[in-house]
Amino acid sequence: MADLPEGWEARGRPPALFRRFEFERYGETRVFLDAVAALTEELGVHPQNISFGTTYVNITLESADGSEPGSVELDLAARINALTGSVEP
Amino acid sequence: MADLPEGWEARGRPPALFRRFEFERYGETRVFLDAVAALTEELGVHPQNISFGTTYVNITLESADGSEPGSVELDLAARINALTGSVEP
Repeated sequence: MADLPEGWEARGRPPALFRRFEFERYGETRVFLDAVAALTEELGVHPQNISFGTTYVNITLESADGSEPGSVELDLAARINALTGSVEP
Repeated sequence: MADLPEGWEARGRPPALFRRFEFERYGETRVFLDAVAALTEELGVHPQNISFGTTYVNITLESADGSEPGSVELDLAARINALTGSVEP
């Protein structure tokens, strides 16, 4: 797999991309969730799974055909990163 | 605990309320997610965890203080049920 966007890791079989985003308050979590929804709608893709609570969002991206994540998923991961005002180190 | 709203079950220690909602298409999933977000914003509560993919939404409701789910959580569960146009049997 190509280099992963910052903060993402490959997980599982077949490998999926995974990243956890943490926020100070629910308001920030909500803004991020809405931005991810708008982005995926614009791109016509759906993350395999998004799991969220008050101050966190865990995102799993899997390729549509079950193969290793490719450029579509890597690009989506990078664009999701760009949605966060404050990207964790 | 009082009678649970249709489709919900008690899970875990301390017990939380859990229900899985399934949909035909992502569009329906999205409408439901947005309705849940609007409802919880209106009520000033946050579900403990919502996990969703293209055609499903799993919701866990836990009391704020870690005690057994009470009237607040039971009411929220019933109101979430009411958001679904087609409640599964």
